[in-house]
Amino acid sequence: MKAISILGSTGSIGQNTLKIVDHLGDLRVAAMSAGRNMSAFATQIARHKPELVSCLDAACAEDLEQRLSEKGFSLPTIMTGQDGLVAVATHEAVETVVSATVGAVGFVPTLRAIEAGKRIALANKETLVMAGELMTSAARDSGAEILPVDSEHNAIHQCLRGENPAEVRRLILTASGGPFRTWPKNAIENATREQALNHPCWDMGDKITIDSATLMNKGLEVIEAKWLFGFDADQISVIVHPQSIVHSMVEMVDGSIIAQMGVTDMKHAIQYALTYPDRRECPLPPLDLTELSKLEFEEPDTGRFPCLNLAYQALRLGGTMPAVLNAANETTVGAFLDGTIRFSDIADINRQVMAGHDSVSAPDLDAILRADEWGRTEAAAILHGVMKRETVHV
Amino acid sequence: MKAISILGSTGSIGQNTLKIVDHLGDLRVAAMSAGRNMSAFATQIARHKPELVSCLDAACAEDLEQRLSEKGFSLPTIMTGQDGLVAVATHEAVETVVSATVGAVGFVPTLRAIEAGKRIALANKETLVMAGELMTSAARDSGAEILPVDSEHNAIHQCLRGENPAEVRRLILTASGGPFRTWPKNAIENATREQALNHPCWDMGDKITIDSATLMNKGLEVIEAKWLFGFDADQISVIVHPQSIVHSMVEMVDGSIIAQMGVTDMKHAIQYALTYPDRRECPLPPLDLTELSKLEFEEPDTGRFPCLNLAYQALRLGGTMPAVLNAANETTVGAFLDGTIRFSDIADINRQVMAGHDSVSAPDLDAILRADEWGRTEAAAILHGVMKRETVHV
Repeated sequence: MKAISILGSTGSIGQNTLKIVDHLGDLRVAAMSAGRNMSAFATQIARHKPELVSCLDAACAEDLEQRLSEKGFSLPTIMTGQDGLVAVATHEAVETVVSATVGAVGFVPTLRAIEAGKRIALANKETLVMAGELMTSAARDSGAEILPVDSEHNAIHQCLRGENPAEVRRLILTASGGPFRTWPKNAIENATREQALNHPCWDMGDKITIDSATLMNKGLEVIEAKWLFGFDADQISVIVHPQSIVHSMVEMVDGSIIAQMGVTDMKHAIQYALTYPDRRECPLPPLDLTELSKLEFEEPDTGRFPCLNLAYQALRLGGTMPAVLNAANETTVGAFLDGTIRFSDIADINRQVMAGHDSVSAPDLDAILRADEWGRTEAAAILHGVMKRETVHV
Repeated sequence: MKAISILGSTGSIGQNTLKIVDHLGDLRVAAMSAGRNMSAFATQIARHKPELVSCLDAACAEDLEQRLSEKGFSLPTIMTGQDGLVAVATHEAVETVVSATVGAVGFVPTLRAIEAGKRIALANKETLVMAGELMTSAARDSGAEILPVDSEHNAIHQCLRGENPAEVRRLILTASGGPFRTWPKNAIENATREQALNHPCWDMGDKITIDSATLMNKGLEVIEAKWLFGFDADQISVIVHPQSIVHSMVEMVDGSIIAQMGVTDMKHAIQYALTYPDRRECPLPPLDLTELSKLEFEEPDTGRFPCLNLAYQALRLGGTMPAVLNAANETTVGAFLDGTIRFSDIADINRQVMAGHDSVSAPDLDAILRADEWGRTEAAAILHGVMKRETVHV
């Protein structure tokens, strides 16, 4: 039986991965990690019986041990922190690592899994955003295969099956447009946390839902697409498609457009990455095309959604700039979710952080991690200034 | 320089093939055939300088010779009739045969080209409708590759690139729905020739345009799809998509739908068949998705368009039944175009002819040709009865 490990098993991708493992019936979960949600993690461990698990810190580990003991369950090896994540990511028995942590925390463990030659089912987009060059170069060296789990890149991966990359004119990532697609600029600027979390199509974690509302999510996906598929910024475009039925497309040099469609459920892409190159029956209702009244497509409005252009700029500037943008964005989105800043401050502060950064080209691991830290610190400093100013205004 | 031949060079597929030959610049036309339009044929010959040409009969040949002599052009070998078509289809220098005659006349020449191991760019759908089993079995024996040139099967061919046929749930052929998509049943029954020829999306020959109005064209495509791709009737479905932007789709076992989209111009599919497995720049404007207001999909209404179900029935009955349906349909569509019968008589007479036929299973060439002739004779006899009845009514 093939073994997988999961980085971030209690998140939405992690939970759906376990459903797919149950459905497929011929995979076992040898190792998995979670952050703080030890209640859910203990239940998952009791069901899937991994040999190795990892959680945030010693306090979580103690909590977990107690919960598992209460269930009368024999304990797996329990590790914590970055060492634990790396151990889960490189577990000897594992062929495929589902990298599904949110944010930069999955970066080093995913790199170690790539270096170990594992197949990566990649849901953690920060990995390629921060360090696309490093990761893809490591994958070439080790022979590791990186299969995208988010619906857009997974769609593009499907559209490219049997195609010659030299014959691709451009990749076309679809964007739902988020909850503010039809809102005027000033309404967007003052959108609340609840409004921003009300995504029209996908049920996802908070961070990525805010990124969908700013279109930063699509910008990060543009950067990710460059590294996954080897195309430059000019060959990657974004189109708003509110119905989210066409998950993405590829336009070939002869003008043919190949599109992948499906129901809006992440289980499809997860299963695809786990079974590739095979396809298997998936526990999802089929897409009923006749139930769709219409499919619409429109150009993204970068005036109202400036984060998309920030991402294109970071990709074109290259080096450590995408890592800095990603770090700034994690910080600003966190501040927005905490109620500290306005919606429009997310893009403004991200832009300011980028403007203050001297990009380092062809960065190594240390340079990327320093840029990441610099971006967070700089964003926090600007945040602090915004908060002080707001206080003065009151 | 690779050489091709064209069966039916003065029809719309033939003309577009010559435009693509001009565009690609690295193909030559070694042989071509036309029916009666010697004016257009002479111009094509003067431009493309084939070694061998064929036309309908001795009178056409004489006409052609005179026209070419007037142009001061050195004469190619000129042949006529079925022998000429077979010579064009099997010309030694030719690697790819574009089979673009309308109706059953392309049947034997295409079979001979397949037996000679040529690649077939197949626009003549009657070939596979009449004799799918025979043709595909001959192709397996000779190693001939059959590449579909009509937009729907070409789209499916593209969607299946890199896919495992065993992992296909179903093929989904799109249909524009024709000019009568939204018409009530009684209005359709009395539709005129001009109304039926007014196709909303595609500019095609008369016969295929009428077949689009009855949905028989889609039915014949269902039969063709079975033989091109090896799927049974239950795995081939039809969806009405009035915009004709999605040219067809494939649903995989995991629920993923791969779709091919493009502008509604036959040059795309022709070029694809000529350059496959390569893709080349095509002289067509790119598809602008944002100019599409909406893409719609609806189930076909077999109550108003009974020809679609006749085709499914013929496919399921198998043997010579599809050839008989095709023969009956050529006869009835011809009679409708001549103003002899009503629009609804096309389906009615086709059904009566099928009902009177005892299907021969696994037919050889003779059995298919006999069934074809029987279908035409029977349809003509019923037609004659309808005409007499109409006369009595007057």
